[in-house]
Amino acid sequence: MTDIEIITIGDELLLGQTIDTNSAFIARQLSEIGLIPRFKSSVGDDVEEIENAFKLAIQRAELVVTTGGLGPTDDDNTKKAIVKVFRRRLVLDDKLLEDIRSRYKKRGIEMPLINQNQALIPSGSLTFKNKFGSAVGIGIIEKNSVFIALPGVPTEMKQMVEGEIIPFLKSKNLGRPVKMITLRTTGIFESQLAEIIADRLKLESGVKLAYLPSFSGVDLRVVAHGESEGVANEKAQKLAAFIEKKIARHIYGKDHDTLPSVIGKLLKDYNKTVATAESCTGGQLGEMITSISGSSNYYLGGFVAYSNDVKKAQLAVREETLEKHGAVSEECAFEMAAGCGKILKSDYTLSITGIAGPEGGTEDKPVGTTFIGLSSVHATYARSFNFGVDRETNRARACYAALEMLRREILDIK
Amino acid sequence: MTDIEIITIGDELLLGQTIDTNSAFIARQLSEIGLIPRFKSSVGDDVEEIENAFKLAIQRAELVVTTGGLGPTDDDNTKKAIVKVFRRRLVLDDKLLEDIRSRYKKRGIEMPLINQNQALIPSGSLTFKNKFGSAVGIGIIEKNSVFIALPGVPTEMKQMVEGEIIPFLKSKNLGRPVKMITLRTTGIFESQLAEIIADRLKLESGVKLAYLPSFSGVDLRVVAHGESEGVANEKAQKLAAFIEKKIARHIYGKDHDTLPSVIGKLLKDYNKTVATAESCTGGQLGEMITSISGSSNYYLGGFVAYSNDVKKAQLAVREETLEKHGAVSEECAFEMAAGCGKILKSDYTLSITGIAGPEGGTEDKPVGTTFIGLSSVHATYARSFNFGVDRETNRARACYAALEMLRREILDIK
Repeated sequence: MTDIEIITIGDELLLGQTIDTNSAFIARQLSEIGLIPRFKSSVGDDVEEIENAFKLAIQRAELVVTTGGLGPTDDDNTKKAIVKVFRRRLVLDDKLLEDIRSRYKKRGIEMPLINQNQALIPSGSLTFKNKFGSAVGIGIIEKNSVFIALPGVPTEMKQMVEGEIIPFLKSKNLGRPVKMITLRTTGIFESQLAEIIADRLKLESGVKLAYLPSFSGVDLRVVAHGESEGVANEKAQKLAAFIEKKIARHIYGKDHDTLPSVIGKLLKDYNKTVATAESCTGGQLGEMITSISGSSNYYLGGFVAYSNDVKKAQLAVREETLEKHGAVSEECAFEMAAGCGKILKSDYTLSITGIAGPEGGTEDKPVGTTFIGLSSVHATYARSFNFGVDRETNRARACYAALEMLRREILDIK
Repeated sequence: MTDIEIITIGDELLLGQTIDTNSAFIARQLSEIGLIPRFKSSVGDDVEEIENAFKLAIQRAELVVTTGGLGPTDDDNTKKAIVKVFRRRLVLDDKLLEDIRSRYKKRGIEMPLINQNQALIPSGSLTFKNKFGSAVGIGIIEKNSVFIALPGVPTEMKQMVEGEIIPFLKSKNLGRPVKMITLRTTGIFESQLAEIIADRLKLESGVKLAYLPSFSGVDLRVVAHGESEGVANEKAQKLAAFIEKKIARHIYGKDHDTLPSVIGKLLKDYNKTVATAESCTGGQLGEMITSISGSSNYYLGGFVAYSNDVKKAQLAVREETLEKHGAVSEECAFEMAAGCGKILKSDYTLSITGIAGPEGGTEDKPVGTTFIGLSSVHATYARSFNFGVDRETNRARACYAALEMLRREILDIK
């Protein structure tokens, strides 16, 4: 088994000014060929700190991938650290220098002198091409261990991982057979899921099950290792099938599916349209539905009925309803959905009204109280929810709950 | 000086299925009280791996903050690792159990048995309240070192860091004198800003300036250290003033200001209202405006005019306009803003129509082409933009550009 470490380099990571998306990208790419990282770490730009991180990494891992610190400026110290840790020296690569120069020439710019640094590489190292920038990747192979340093600019790094590093690792036979399946659920708590699933659950060796809760629900992740791709796949499918049987109605999709993408596919398949009437979410439900390219095939549009005047004038919510039950009420959600559906002639119409917070809660209707309406040719109804968290979460959960109501309505899941 | 390590726990981080935003948030919060992390690492859910990570961390750092692994299920191993590393045992906290039970009761659900686990805490540890979930934070203080374990769910963790951990660390006098000021700009490139600012710029010792580009614009981060809070503050203010003088019109806010919060404050101050008519952004602009609590004071609502029928029927966009210029045109943006403003009687009205991509681009109007309209009592006009990136970025940039147009309109910045 190969132990793997990813190291990301940069002061901005330690200060939290930049969220480290590089290590997740590399981890995903490696995982997909069965190389699951065991360690991830970040260090600042200081050359000694980088050295220490590299030393620790090559002690505990056979494959190390780093990003950052390969630029031309003074705070780019990755190559200096490599030279020390691996006892190499920096040598000028004439061909590389020519490449960098011609890269600038193409853009009609003379190469700044400082970029000469980027043609210096550790002696005896491999280089990996960078299509989008002048920092090449560096590879050091010693005995059975592989050390790879990549630039930190995400577009440059990504292109190199996909185009150069993964094929290189495969050619070295470093991959391992693995299969991952993610089952995506919503509208049910992690602990409730766990209780249902745990009953008569037996995990085969090499198989793991993890619960990953988020805004949108709880993802169940199955990871299976095996002697061959076939065996890993079989083990993963078996566990996924066991789980699916138990909680089928809560699973809206697999792997890269999202609720908006699943809803979109259903609406396209059934040739139906949807519209939205939002109050407390202010347009977020529409935003989520239209996050899918091609959503114009089934999403008509809708209303952001934030003020009561808009609710009345645009959606025909009755004055009486607002007076008697308030804007945050089942009755109002009902009338918003019905009104919007009538005006836009949509097959399905979703409405949301609630108290997102942190202000506006009452004893009767605390922060998080939300009513979601659904109108279709079959019926119009509204359901109440209480999410009871912060403004951002309450609004996101309301949108996911609305989409899940729509999914169940379309599929007639009770 | 205190050495600090942040450890995030979870297989999903090593697999790259989740981007680690927690460590960046904690790093930022700690940095703001002068506690700049030296190490960041991630480990999987395996109890031995967590133990090893904890052991290494307490060897090399005096303050360790971890997130993840405090849930109720089998793959939540943080407390098991704490018990081993710090030679404690798990004890049942009756009061905590009662709290968890009543949390479920409030939502009308019986507590699943499995949640009992969450009332087990390492002997002799502090606990930190979790407003939004049933996993409390754990604090272990030994000699001069502090170890803090927090849940991995971002909303829960964030609330605890801000409400509990930072005040706790301050009370222990662990902070160092530092002042950070962030100047937030939008609508201008990083390199343009850098050119303007670099002229006659001299950085005092202990003062750093960083450029942080993102969706919403470029943030300028000033970090100043000093012997005292006063000195640090003075240094930071001096640099911030120097920069502000040079680029005042591009700065929409400071520190925690966001464009929606700044717009909200302006509209409240001027006692004006705003409405929105969105096509390609599908409701995102309304969502952003209403992300601010109290936005009902100035946001009326609006239309998501995704289909042409909705544009015509609801916003009175003329058939002729759509035929002659298309839905993605200056003319359509103009009519959307004018129509929406007339119907909702808003003081200001914003409209957005564009090609978000990845499909739908033409030679004439490539992906990213966007028209933003603004209507007020003074005038109605539309501007064209080309963001030219991916769907998500194009839509987000369009919303920020619309808000910046509004800010400049209100403040009469040409």
